[in-house]
Amino acid sequence: MAESSKITPERRGLMFVISSPSGAGKSTIANLLLKEDDNLKLSVSATTRERRSSEVDGVHYHFLSRDKFQKMVDGEEFLEWAEVHGNYYGTPKEFVENELEHGRDVLFDIDVQGAEQLKAKLPDDIATLFILPPSVLEMKNRLKTRATDSDEVILRRMKTAVGELEQWPNYEYLIVNEDLDKAYGQVKAILSSERMKQGRQEKNANLARKLYEDLIEETQNEI
Amino acid sequence: MAESSKITPERRGLMFVISSPSGAGKSTIANLLLKEDDNLKLSVSATTRERRSSEVDGVHYHFLSRDKFQKMVDGEEFLEWAEVHGNYYGTPKEFVENELEHGRDVLFDIDVQGAEQLKAKLPDDIATLFILPPSVLEMKNRLKTRATDSDEVILRRMKTAVGELEQWPNYEYLIVNEDLDKAYGQVKAILSSERMKQGRQEKNANLARKLYEDLIEETQNEI
Repeated sequence: MAESSKITPERRGLMFVISSPSGAGKSTIANLLLKEDDNLKLSVSATTRERRSSEVDGVHYHFLSRDKFQKMVDGEEFLEWAEVHGNYYGTPKEFVENELEHGRDVLFDIDVQGAEQLKAKLPDDIATLFILPPSVLEMKNRLKTRATDSDEVILRRMKTAVGELEQWPNYEYLIVNEDLDKAYGQVKAILSSERMKQGRQEKNANLARKLYEDLIEETQNEI
Repeated sequence: MAESSKITPERRGLMFVISSPSGAGKSTIANLLLKEDDNLKLSVSATTRERRSSEVDGVHYHFLSRDKFQKMVDGEEFLEWAEVHGNYYGTPKEFVENELEHGRDVLFDIDVQGAEQLKAKLPDDIATLFILPPSVLEMKNRLKTRATDSDEVILRRMKTAVGELEQWPNYEYLIVNEDLDKAYGQVKAILSSERMKQGRQEKNANLARKLYEDLIEETQNEI
């Protein structure tokens, strides 16, 4: 397309991965970020699992047939994919790469295995954050506030959380969501800071090169 | 000392290196940071060069004799040191290591060679930022505002700046100081974000370990 050949973003976008055990308040923080930050879009995963009545295709997931999913795997159209309890989940590559090229950031709500696959594919384009709940009690309270969930479901989530929780050492940043405002401020600072990483600052790098040339010219003229 | 054996800081401190060519407004930003951030202290370099009348020993530099400086080199009491135009400059190790252990951050106003030596010594404890001026004209104007400087001094600074400027690719973060408030906000975000790095978050890492144990206990009790 003519438009895409003219891309000159100020910087390259980044993949911002936020993981946490269930009940750490990750969704609240992620939704605030997506609402307030115009330059951040959510990566919507593809899946072969059944759509729940509360879910919207293309919003919560791209719901795909196994056949379609397999074709995308064969065509290397996923940045990462995995099988979980007999269903397939994956991150479509095209959307993410297009966003990064246009200088927009992509938020990922994926687990550590997914994050590791992303890192292997695009090692310079990723920042990973792990959010801790302040206590198991608080975690349980947050899980219980979903009124629809039975005690059994909550216990199952907490058991899953054990495996999620032990992944924290694999993440670059670690914060605790005790106070939402504070935690949200920290997440915003991390995202802002990651945007300043030298390798992403194409416009500023060009400025640095131009300054260098200008300065050489300026100082030579004055000899 | 009894006190130091009881250190339990929330996190390990970090070395925050800010470099820039002269005239990029680095000093203004550094001074604002030091004034507003109680957890940040400036690393005062040692030097063998003559003290200028405007300089205070222990504030601008630790002014040392060549003999004393050499003894500190021999005793490996510097984190980094170098000879520049026949004078020696170095970063005393004891102050920095004490601050880091107590969870306080140290600001460095040093060049890229110094930063590389710090990184070699304490690779996990450093973050490096390069500040660009928006233009050579702006740079010149800022250099000229020091009324005491002759045209010759300014030209010499600009020539030095050529060598300083080409170091930008060696830094982790890159920002432009066009608008002071914006640039200062970016620097603060980078410092905040670096403090959240997982390897520095000792308290939060301990919390993660405790949460893991509590969660296992909690889920086992309910089986």
